[in-house]
Formats: sequence, C-alpha cells, structure tokens
Amino acid sequence: MRQSQLFARTRWEDPTEETAKNAKLLIRAGLVHKEMAGVYAFLPLGLRVLRKIETVIREEMNAIGGQEVLMTTLQNPEIWHKTGRFDDAVVDNWFKTKLVSGGELGIANTHEEPITAMLVHHLKSYKDLPVYVYQFQTKFRNELRAKSGIMRGREFLMKDLYSFSRTEVEFHTFYEQCAAAYLRIFARVGLGDHTFRTLAAGGSFTTGLTDEFQTLSEAGEDIIYIDRSKHLAVNKEVLTDENLARLGLERANLEEAKSIEVGNIFPLGHRYSDALGLKYRDESGLDQPIYMGSYGIGLSRLLGTIVEVLADDGGIVWPASVAPFAVHLVALGSSEPVRQAADQIYADLSQAGVEALFDDRDLPAGEKLGDADLLGMPLRVIVSEKTLAAGKLEVKNRQTAEIRHLTFAELITEFK
Amino acid sequence: MRQSQLFARTRWEDPTEETAKNAKLLIRAGLVHKEMAGVYAFLPLGLRVLRKIETVIREEMNAIGGQEVLMTTLQNPEIWHKTGRFDDAVVDNWFKTKLVSGGELGIANTHEEPITAMLVHHLKSYKDLPVYVYQFQTKFRNELRAKSGIMRGREFLMKDLYSFSRTEVEFHTFYEQCAAAYLRIFARVGLGDHTFRTLAAGGSFTTGLTDEFQTLSEAGEDIIYIDRSKHLAVNKEVLTDENLARLGLERANLEEAKSIEVGNIFPLGHRYSDALGLKYRDESGLDQPIYMGSYGIGLSRLLGTIVEVLADDGGIVWPASVAPFAVHLVALGSSEPVRQAADQIYADLSQAGVEALFDDRDLPAGEKLGDADLLGMPLRVIVSEKTLAAGKLEVKNRQTAEIRHLTFAELITEFK
Repeated sequence: MRQSQLFARTRWEDPTEETAKNAKLLIRAGLVHKEMAGVYAFLPLGLRVLRKIETVIREEMNAIGGQEVLMTTLQNPEIWHKTGRFDDAVVDNWFKTKLVSGGELGIANTHEEPITAMLVHHLKSYKDLPVYVYQFQTKFRNELRAKSGIMRGREFLMKDLYSFSRTEVEFHTFYEQCAAAYLRIFARVGLGDHTFRTLAAGGSFTTGLTDEFQTLSEAGEDIIYIDRSKHLAVNKEVLTDENLARLGLERANLEEAKSIEVGNIFPLGHRYSDALGLKYRDESGLDQPIYMGSYGIGLSRLLGTIVEVLADDGGIVWPASVAPFAVHLVALGSSEPVRQAADQIYADLSQAGVEALFDDRDLPAGEKLGDADLLGMPLRVIVSEKTLAAGKLEVKNRQTAEIRHLTFAELITEFK
Repeated sequence: MRQSQLFARTRWEDPTEETAKNAKLLIRAGLVHKEMAGVYAFLPLGLRVLRKIETVIREEMNAIGGQEVLMTTLQNPEIWHKTGRFDDAVVDNWFKTKLVSGGELGIANTHEEPITAMLVHHLKSYKDLPVYVYQFQTKFRNELRAKSGIMRGREFLMKDLYSFSRTEVEFHTFYEQCAAAYLRIFARVGLGDHTFRTLAAGGSFTTGLTDEFQTLSEAGEDIIYIDRSKHLAVNKEVLTDENLARLGLERANLEEAKSIEVGNIFPLGHRYSDALGLKYRDESGLDQPIYMGSYGIGLSRLLGTIVEVLADDGGIVWPASVAPFAVHLVALGSSEPVRQAADQIYADLSQAGVEALFDDRDLPAGEKLGDADLLGMPLRVIVSEKTLAAGKLEVKNRQTAEIRHLTFAELITEFK
C-alpha cells in the first residue's frame, strides 16, 4: 500500500486522556481511534493486525476440531433467565436495551447460554459428540472504569470456544489439546517467551480451579508467581502448597511478576447444559448430561499486549506474523532516480508476494524514519541516492536495529 | 469437511413462526439459527457463505480505492447530537443503552457520524482527498416487526462505504465508479440478471434522488418499473415523466415488478461534514467543505436474497462464487470399496484445492440425496457400487439438474 494513499496519519503528541502505553502508541501510529473510554475503532493498519491475529487463532482452533459460527449481539432474556444470569445482581456488567415492540434485551456479554440453547436443536445422540464450537464476536462489558487502553474495553473482539463432551474424561482430553493450541497461538503472535500457563481460581464461571494464560508486563493487573525453567505459573490468589505440589513447583524457584491475562480456559461442568436442557442419548438409550468447557482469547487485548510488551522507545515493534506489512519501504529524497527505483522495488515486492507499506510521501527524511520506527514493521528498507550509488538496499531489522545492505534478490530470499 | 463431523443438522419440517422462504430454507439446511425475531446466528455452512460474499465485496471496494476500517457498536451520543440524529423523533429505530457510570449510549444504527468525526483527526489538506472508507460491521435497527427472515433483521451485517471528496464533481466520478462496482458484485454473487440499478427517492439521508440496486423477487417489499433491454429501473415512488426522460426510458417499455433492495448509494452533500466540522484547506489556504456520499450493501440480506431468488423446490441453489463448498461428495452405501474410494476422492479433491463437503454419514441414500439438494452445493458427486463398476463418477449440476459421468481427472479440469 502507498502511504500517500493511507488516510490515517501519525501524530507526535501523546493523546490526552490516555494513560496506557498501548493506546498511546496505537493512536499515535494511526492504528486505532478512540470512540470513547474503553471503546476503540480499528483503522486500516490496526485492522490488518487484528485480522492476522484472527487468522492465527482460526488456524489453531480448526486444527483441534473447532467449527466456526457467528452468534448474535442481541440476546434473548428467556434463555438467560434459565441460568439466572440475566439478573444484574448476578452478572454486574451487562449492557441492556429495549425493543420498541416491548421487552428488554441483553447486549452480548458472553455466549455460553445462546450457544448451548442453539445446540439443543442439533445434538441428540452420543454419535454427535464431542463438538467444539467457536466464534470471533464482539463482547460488551459495562465497566465502571476503563483505563487500560484497548486491553480492557467496554467493547472488544473475542474468540470464544465452547466444548461439549460426553464425559469429564473426554472433556479433559480436549482441555489439554486446547491449552497446547493456546501456547502455540501465543508463540505464533510473538509472546511465547513472555506467556505462562497459570493456575487460577475459576471466577464467576466455575467453582474449581482453571487455567489462565498470563503475559508478563508491568501494565498487567494480575500478580503471578512464575517458574521460568518449567515455564509454568500460579496466580497469587491460589498460591498454596497444595496447588504448587499439584504442578510440581517449589516456592524457592518462584518469581513474582505482574502480568496480563491473555487467555483463559474453564471447566463448566453441567451447569449450562442442565439449565438449558442440552443432553444426549447414550448407547443404551438413556439421556445423559453434556460436560462443557469454555476457552477465551480477547483479540483486541492480545493486540494491545503485543504493543505493551514488545514496543521500545521508538514505537511499536510488530512480530512478522501479525505486522500490518512485512516491509516498510521508505524512499528518501525526491530525486527522479530515487522515485523510479523505489516504484520499481515496490512493484517487484508485490510481484514476489511480499506485503509492503511504501512511504512515497514527500516529507523530510527524519519524519519518514520516525514514522517507520513508530509504525514498527519488521523490516525497514531504504531507497536513497546513497543506496542507489552503492547498488544495495539498506535493510533495518526493527526489533534488533541491525542494519544490513542487501541486493533485492537477497532481500527476497528472506521471505522464501 | 466431513459431514459426519458437522454439528449442524438438516431438518425436514419447516420451522414454526417463519413465513419467509429464505429463513425456512436456511434454518432447515442448518445454515442459520433463529435467536429471536429478526436476529439470526450463522452456523458453519452459513458463515462460509457470508465470508465469501464479504470477500467478493472487499475485492471490489479495494479495487475502487476503499480503505477498510472497523468502527464500533457503542455510539457516543455527543457526536450524534451535532447532527440531531440521536433524537428518537428523528431516527425512530435506535437501540440505546446506559453506561453503569452514567449516560446513555447508542447501539450502532448507522455510521455516518462516527466515521466523519474520526476523519476530523486525519484529513487536513486538499492533498489528503479524496478518501473512501468502508467497513463490514453489524447494524442494529429497532424494527417494530421483523417478518422477512434474514432479509430485514434487527441485527444484520452491512458493508458501508463513505466517500469524502473535494467537490461535487469529484464525488460524482466516484459515485459512478461505485455504482459500476456494485453491479459487478451482484453479478459475481449470481444475481446479475435479476438486479437493476433503480432510480429512487433519497429517504431520510438526502433530499435529492439516489440509486438503489433492486433484485426482482416476489418476496420483495418494493415496487419498481424495469426496462429489461436497458437493464435499468425506476422505483414506483419516483415514476414521473421527468425522471424517465432523465434515464432515457419510455413508459411503454416498462414492466412492473416486486423487488428486494440489495444495495443503495446516496449523495450526502455537506450535511454531516458541516455538522461535525470536517473540512479541508485548499491550495490557497482557505477552508472548504467536504462533499460526502454513502454506499451500503447488507450482506445478510444479500445472502437471503440469493436463497429467495435462486432456490427451487428441492432446496437452496448456491452460485459457485458463494457456495459453502464447491462440491458435495456423497458416498452411497456402506460397502468397504465405496468407503475407500470416497475417502480417496475426498483426499484427492483437497489435494487439488477443491473445497468439498463429504457426506460420509451412515444414512439411507434418499436422505443423503435430499440433503444434497437442500444444501445446494453447485456440484453433487456420487460414489456408489454403480459408479465404481462404471469407472466414472456421477456428477450432477444442482442448478440445471444435468447429470454427467466423469473420471476424476475430468472433474478436476472443471476447477482449473
């Protein structure tokens, strides 16, 4: 994409009313727009990152047998009354609205109830199970305060998967498969080293223990205790000798850290299936309860976490897997030879299937280089009088700051 | 995909409480789930169609210079007060909600205001224009009644593009480019012959005339007058001699028809840019107003229209461009040779990059063939004792019912 065509501009001043690093950088880079506190729109480059994260998650969810659906935002109170969760005293962060034809509706806070109720029409026999259903859908949470940028939104995109199993044993097999898929996802989006499977309390969804995935960050709201060598952690709220023994961890090897919860997986047992009448007929013709689990990753929070954790003083640092573009091609100087050479390289990159953002704007070099750092593409490729004279491109790695001088053919081999 | 793994089942009884053909068929085929009146969830095969329609539209919007964003569902009343449109007396089908921290919010009814307000931060100079911004985002309309299945939802997915031009002339150039793109979109999703560019009244968005795109269907809520040879139409509400003359049409050549509005394009003039303070600085340093237009296609309505218009007595008929799968591979009989041959053909189709739904279920032949008709993939490929003996596959075209006997190699050439 030609940067001269991109409507979203960068800015150098921090936005007012933002305290979170992720929101400051994403707004300054022109990747998101703040609609109001906790509510952010995605501009073209930000949306590209969001879609790439979505693709990584979709691939991993499909690989473990997930079937994708798209549930609705407007929620029918009838099915929520069956679990008692329409009550504001039970779920305290609902947004609700009213039908002009009469009656109150919920605005999707989560989707256990509608997915379970929908499956009543489709699951009958033991032969139909297990089933894993997931979606990418916006959630709405009526937070009293929203102050962590896009990491704790009132409106945010989430991947939520629900598992429906015949038995607790069958459920646990999938639970572990999903935990492994989650670790692959966090590794693929560049947070593998920073993210720990973490034993935690189940919160309002379950009474037992659950697993969270926590990414180390000073911006986090959680306190966890990590064992770096075993790459495991325990949330402070469940740090007991019994739980440490369960994980084979010892207090002496633990390190306290602040962290961001980027994913969670919950056993739900029979709570929702019982309440909504979802059961299956077993081999002997008897009705049996269905054992459920839920598995969530907030995509906009994950995007914000990548920014929080990997950014440096110059700006955002995108891992190649989710960067808006693989290459930021920057033409310095407006001489005709530079312009022509840059145009040609841009065309050749497209031809080679390499996604490039081409800074073809007529701006001072300092401004363009500053923007390249702020926007954070993995490779910055400079075309200038100097590089033309040398017959090589200047290629800078955004993360390591390493500079190399490569021919176009050498550059292209990096993407093979 | 193996049909034995697909959780969504077909059913033979029409759903109760549905009068619209599109909803009856989509629910019977297991493509959508009715959450409540006018609110439908998409199940795996339905979501595949929705995403394919989205891809077609995205390609055409990118081709005319559109930049994709994702605005928000929660709407800040402040910016809507500037145009007066937060008032229920002005826009009568808002859903609204309340922040727990105080204050009312809108639930996205449309997005002129937020997109215009967002661009105030990004557009400054004549050099920044024209700009075309679009999104795929859910809209919410508080309809008193919802009775046309997924064609008039209380919640529905829409592509909305907004154009920002320096002058009315610049706007009109893009307006015609977008009209041409719309005709390509409707042709690509299989509705080209049935869909007419139609002169219409502007409704609440504008005082002048606008263009609608109307697809002929008895299920439609509009009455239009079409000239088949010129492939143009006039909405009944603006059928005047003056307007006919403007289009070069004559009353004698017109035919009355019922139709579904599948797209619309509106001149917005300076209404929103003036109200929200969006202007640009021209070459001489003077502030100038920005001329806007809006361009909408409802994706879920378009999906419903394809079903309404192309379905036959046997069920849905998908055009290849948006079908959930290109091929429905059906194994008849459960003998080991049939099973093995079908498995091999399924693997070979995947290998060749052909998307196939593989009916590997242990069900009577009649039920599987009925499901294949109901689900409506473009090609049904049968593997049975009979086809194995003949050494050829039985390939049926869902639309024409033509049956051919092809080798696998011959089948594959259809997709080259």
